[in-house]
Amino acid sequence: MCFDRIHRAGPRKKIYYEPGAVKAGIVTCGGLCPGLNDVIRQIVFTLDIYGVKNIVGIPFGYRGFFDKSLSEIPLSRQVVQNINLAGGSLLGVSRGSASTGEIVDSIQARRIDMLFILGGNGTHAGAHAIHEECRKRKLKVSVVCVPKTIDNDILLMDKTFGFDTAVEEAQRAINSAYIEAHSAYHGIGLVKLMGRSSGFIAMHASLSSGQIDVCLIPEVPFNLEGPYGVLKHLEQLIQTKGSAVVCVAEGAGQNLLETSNATDASGNIVLGDIGVHIQQKIKTHFKGIGVHADVKYIDPTYMIRAIRANASDAILCTVLGQNAVHGAFAGFSGITVGLCNTHYVYLPIPEVITSPRCVNPNSRMWHRCLTSTGQPDFL
Amino acid sequence: MCFDRIHRAGPRKKIYYEPGAVKAGIVTCGGLCPGLNDVIRQIVFTLDIYGVKNIVGIPFGYRGFFDKSLSEIPLSRQVVQNINLAGGSLLGVSRGSASTGEIVDSIQARRIDMLFILGGNGTHAGAHAIHEECRKRKLKVSVVCVPKTIDNDILLMDKTFGFDTAVEEAQRAINSAYIEAHSAYHGIGLVKLMGRSSGFIAMHASLSSGQIDVCLIPEVPFNLEGPYGVLKHLEQLIQTKGSAVVCVAEGAGQNLLETSNATDASGNIVLGDIGVHIQQKIKTHFKGIGVHADVKYIDPTYMIRAIRANASDAILCTVLGQNAVHGAFAGFSGITVGLCNTHYVYLPIPEVITSPRCVNPNSRMWHRCLTSTGQPDFL
Amino acid sequence: MCFDRIHRAGPRKKIYYEPGAVKAGIVTCGGLCPGLNDVIRQIVFTLDIYGVKNIVGIPFGYRGFFDKSLSEIPLSRQVVQNINLAGGSLLGVSRGSASTGEIVDSIQARRIDMLFILGGNGTHAGAHAIHEECRKRKLKVSVVCVPKTIDNDILLMDKTFGFDTAVEEAQRAINSAYIEAHSAYHGIGLVKLMGRSSGFIAMHASLSSGQIDVCLIPEVPFNLEGPYGVLKHLEQLIQTKGSAVVCVAEGAGQNLLETSNATDASGNIVLGDIGVHIQQKIKTHFKGIGVHADVKYIDPTYMIRAIRANASDAILCTVLGQNAVHGAFAGFSGITVGLCNTHYVYLPIPEVITSPRCVNPNSRMWHRCLTSTGQPDFL
Amino acid sequence: MCFDRIHRAGPRKKIYYEPGAVKAGIVTCGGLCPGLNDVIRQIVFTLDIYGVKNIVGIPFGYRGFFDKSLSEIPLSRQVVQNINLAGGSLLGVSRGSASTGEIVDSIQARRIDMLFILGGNGTHAGAHAIHEECRKRKLKVSVVCVPKTIDNDILLMDKTFGFDTAVEEAQRAINSAYIEAHSAYHGIGLVKLMGRSSGFIAMHASLSSGQIDVCLIPEVPFNLEGPYGVLKHLEQLIQTKGSAVVCVAEGAGQNLLETSNATDASGNIVLGDIGVHIQQKIKTHFKGIGVHADVKYIDPTYMIRAIRANASDAILCTVLGQNAVHGAFAGFSGITVGLCNTHYVYLPIPEVITSPRCVNPNSRMWHRCLTSTGQPDFL
Repeated sequence: MCFDRIHRAGPRKKIYYEPGAVKAGIVTCGGLCPGLNDVIRQIVFTLDIYGVKNIVGIPFGYRGFFDKSLSEIPLSRQVVQNINLAGGSLLGVSRGSASTGEIVDSIQARRIDMLFILGGNGTHAGAHAIHEECRKRKLKVSVVCVPKTIDNDILLMDKTFGFDTAVEEAQRAINSAYIEAHSAYHGIGLVKLMGRSSGFIAMHASLSSGQIDVCLIPEVPFNLEGPYGVLKHLEQLIQTKGSAVVCVAEGAGQNLLETSNATDASGNIVLGDIGVHIQQKIKTHFKGIGVHADVKYIDPTYMIRAIRANASDAILCTVLGQNAVHGAFAGFSGITVGLCNTHYVYLPIPEVITSPRCVNPNSRMWHRCLTSTGQPDFL
Repeated sequence: MCFDRIHRAGPRKKIYYEPGAVKAGIVTCGGLCPGLNDVIRQIVFTLDIYGVKNIVGIPFGYRGFFDKSLSEIPLSRQVVQNINLAGGSLLGVSRGSASTGEIVDSIQARRIDMLFILGGNGTHAGAHAIHEECRKRKLKVSVVCVPKTIDNDILLMDKTFGFDTAVEEAQRAINSAYIEAHSAYHGIGLVKLMGRSSGFIAMHASLSSGQIDVCLIPEVPFNLEGPYGVLKHLEQLIQTKGSAVVCVAEGAGQNLLETSNATDASGNIVLGDIGVHIQQKIKTHFKGIGVHADVKYIDPTYMIRAIRANASDAILCTVLGQNAVHGAFAGFSGITVGLCNTHYVYLPIPEVITSPRCVNPNSRMWHRCLTSTGQPDFL
Repeated sequence: MCFDRIHRAGPRKKIYYEPGAVKAGIVTCGGLCPGLNDVIRQIVFTLDIYGVKNIVGIPFGYRGFFDKSLSEIPLSRQVVQNINLAGGSLLGVSRGSASTGEIVDSIQARRIDMLFILGGNGTHAGAHAIHEECRKRKLKVSVVCVPKTIDNDILLMDKTFGFDTAVEEAQRAINSAYIEAHSAYHGIGLVKLMGRSSGFIAMHASLSSGQIDVCLIPEVPFNLEGPYGVLKHLEQLIQTKGSAVVCVAEGAGQNLLETSNATDASGNIVLGDIGVHIQQKIKTHFKGIGVHADVKYIDPTYMIRAIRANASDAILCTVLGQNAVHGAFAGFSGITVGLCNTHYVYLPIPEVITSPRCVNPNSRMWHRCLTSTGQPDFL
Repeated sequence: MCFDRIHRAGPRKKIYYEPGAVKAGIVTCGGLCPGLNDVIRQIVFTLDIYGVKNIVGIPFGYRGFFDKSLSEIPLSRQVVQNINLAGGSLLGVSRGSASTGEIVDSIQARRIDMLFILGGNGTHAGAHAIHEECRKRKLKVSVVCVPKTIDNDILLMDKTFGFDTAVEEAQRAINSAYIEAHSAYHGIGLVKLMGRSSGFIAMHASLSSGQIDVCLIPEVPFNLEGPYGVLKHLEQLIQTKGSAVVCVAEGAGQNLLETSNATDASGNIVLGDIGVHIQQKIKTHFKGIGVHADVKYIDPTYMIRAIRANASDAILCTVLGQNAVHGAFAGFSGITVGLCNTHYVYLPIPEVITSPRCVNPNSRMWHRCLTSTGQPDFL
């Protein structure tokens, strides 16, 4: 990491655009994440304070740049006033992309001066390519990203927006699984939470609930079968406690699944469904040993993604949105805004997209989680 | 229906038991339903007011009568004081049964005088058999049921406890589906709700949300394919509105599925999964016509079943619990307590279990639902 | 009551207006009540289905008719699509009125054919006067009311919208009072709920919470002082249970207060604050007997009024809104729509406004509440 | 601050107590705060993991040490399993104290080896005196505090438990005030939030809501009257926007009030009620200028204090509870546990109690709040 390329976020004395002449665009890419509307709202508010009048939303992610059937959405303080009270994205989202050239053609044709892009790793890579192409064409366009990943897996960043809300909302699913498990005879509750590459949501949700017996994350390998496997441990929990609750991140134990190599429109590998897999394995295992077990499987993903941001995320979104605009007016391009080591900073996009941030299995937080669940190694 | 066998619920001047000598048992059977703990709590409170000191819970449904590893749970005002604040059942639930003879042997051995049974149709049939067997053996045992069906499908009854809560909680899933559908390009949200034989939850949840475009229930047949089918309608919605939200009851469209004839431990036929089926059909259909569509499927069943009762159900549970005890002290046996035509009454069990109560497709309520969704006939 | 003037609500074969030529107005009067936006939304939807294009909202109650600074709010399906997701009233509310003549002048000037008025008793009286004046002037104007009273105190009506939501939301305040009382040494929680003339909210909220020791409503007189007074009872509760929770309707015990005869803009007498009064009496009493007591007083009124309708009220609002429009098209005027004895009907306004509906102190529901609280007579 | 007296929190290799022989006591002092039960629960769990069997709760704060009518509450893993699901404190709280000598006599008599004290500044001062007295008497007693202040005003600490939950729950009151204000003609919503000496809750709640026009905190002086006062600003807001929402911390503007010098049982000065004061001033002001204004005042204090901790606070409480026990076993006494500059540490009590932590009026966060509200200086 090159520290001299990282700058403290915030307003600058000198601004590089004449606000009255600026056309600003906002686009939201990828899947839903609580807080999208908060960031959109705050970008519009802050542009308005600078004096920008021409603000538009590009509908449905990068698709909005090339799909001729889609029109720009005019944005103003009035339009966005209460959008933070609902989940989702006012602008719509979608996965996938066009060629960088096509997008930059569209940016030129629309005469956009500032482009605010909300999205994850893939979207950031696309944004970087757009930034590079704009530079090549000598266009004066500021490309500023705000990282959007509910998984909280962006390198260098303390926390990304939506994560806190997701952990909070996951409590509802975990408590339901706990109630189902404890009310059933030999009940086993199983909750699958988001987390393709990293287990932050599963770890934090398990720890905060205090109701999880087994937490499985992508960073920590485990066996289901065998004398030290998860199934054997569940057997013991059923014998001693009468019930058990398991929380698994969607990206955990992918080595245990037969996967196709299919990818989705964002280029992400389509994961095998570890939740369904474990559910079936538990059923088979207990049938095999002749012990009754009652498995209840809950996948709350879409119910978590679609809710509005909680108060803590609302503040994070507010500050990110304000600073995204400050960054563009300061003349930055090809940057992303984030909270690093308790400070808000601007980072060059390439710094944050080389790999996803992961849970450190030797960290205090993971050990606190293990203390809370009381689970052994499953190897 | 024989009206002279139906009695207004409530306390009677004469009571048929010496409270101080009574041993009362409570058992909860079948799946979870919001309000179980409220009913248990209120039965205990009312028994306590009568002066009954010996109150026990039979754990895990009828299983608690014959599984030697399970012990009676002593109940008192103090034990149940705050159990209504959590979902589930303090006593545990399970499906399935033993032979009636075995259960009555157990009742005799335990010297139970009053047995309060919370459960659905199958449980009521079992309760009736227990009542008959007790009578045959000339045991002075009052068998009193409280109908528990989240589906609200008990004959003659205005409303069963848990239904109102389920409709309320379903809003969360529907709103998520709506947000997902409206934020996606050509988004289709699909929510499966409870309702094996009857579509009350789906109908009420659709109507109250005001966000549903298509509501499918078991009582109203429909085609997916064909010029008047659901898929064609979704195609039109995507063209005109850009998105659509579908609500389907789990028992809807079973004729469209290949089903095994498997049954669960309660003897209910294991339904094919209409939610997954429709999801796949939508995907195939839109792929077939070369139109992008983004389907998000939500099954909130376990998250709805496991929550605590809302205020309206809490009152219903309170009154049902009080009246169950009044009925037993009045010397009734083989009855069930319910709200019929705005009055609380005691009914002989056989009156209510001949068939499930269904949505009348000619009723005003279903027509209001159709007006709200704007959906056509799908035949 | 004259039964031949009461009609079943619903669409009629013959309609008395040419939809394309109709101008419809909607106005919301009085204080906030959960569901106002649901009713507005459904009136607009139903008018739209009939084919009415010219729909306007009159801002801020009757004030909107005469305050020249206020403009009509154009309404359409799109404008009202999601207004039910927020509390309050899109149109604004206010108390007070102009002269009937002035309002009817304004109706004429605006060429309004159908006027939908949402409000309470006072508003209904005003609506009746408007209807009479229109008839006198031979104007073909349909004046149709939808009763809005969170207190649920409209004569003849089973339930008015917002009531169910209020009871649900009151749980939050009651539970807080319970937690405060139980966590404090000699803690007494005191919650004041809405209910000017009738104690329905207090009674239902107490019953559903199961956490109230004393429930005080306007219909049942009580003493605070004296050997059988509320204070003596609290003393005993503190001695025996260590804590107590009281729920009082705002209109209860008005005879105990010195009141001015002031009225608010709606002409309602300004009530003395019974909550504050009881709080002070409790403090004085316990100080007087040298016993420590820790009183926590909660008045959640504005937090209850301002929330959105729950699912049950949303259905009620939907059906009321639909039927209000059906009534206007059927040519009725001077009517109000309501749920009477489980049926939706049109009633002449005078039938419902002679007095508020009250809790019957001899009813089963009040007795269930007394059983639940365990409170004695306080006389 | 003396840095060599600050230690990283966590388990140590060497422990200074034989777990089987330890008697541990827990006491909660002061007012309620979300998370008290989470900390109690985690202390018990962690003691249990160490092997401590003899764990008791001291009821109702320091009062439990000397009030002979109160008994110790035996604590175990089973007792505390689900206490985090409810707000309040299982042990009860109270303000005030006995003499230090009396408390230490009681500690000796009970043979307590470890005392975990949850409370605020005053409680910490008491804990320090207890620690000193134990040292003087050469008692081997570990006195370990966990700071409990919903106001988040403990020196050196990033965040105290309950604060995040309070900010979240405050949204409910603010949104109600916003809805009331926006639905009324010339509506002004006024919300008073906790914050005796510092405005963290008011600042964060205002910022996250995005609905506040004026935020008033103790650290920033303001005038109500005069050409630059709050009232004049409200006048302008009513003229331009038609409504306004004000958020005031309870400790703000105390110089504007006539106060008695009364103190509560904790020795805190009884504050004048700034919320009621501002409400009256607004009424008088608008009456004076002949402009209608409709003020709605909400004080949600007890409804915020009494709720359970949210997920984020639950994790904070978990880690604090675990580390409190680690600290005691490591042989520390007279310390408090907290999150300082992102790390969990043990601090000597005197370091944190010299004064409350305050909002820095020159900080970025306060400036973000001002940007969000758009309010001027009120001087």
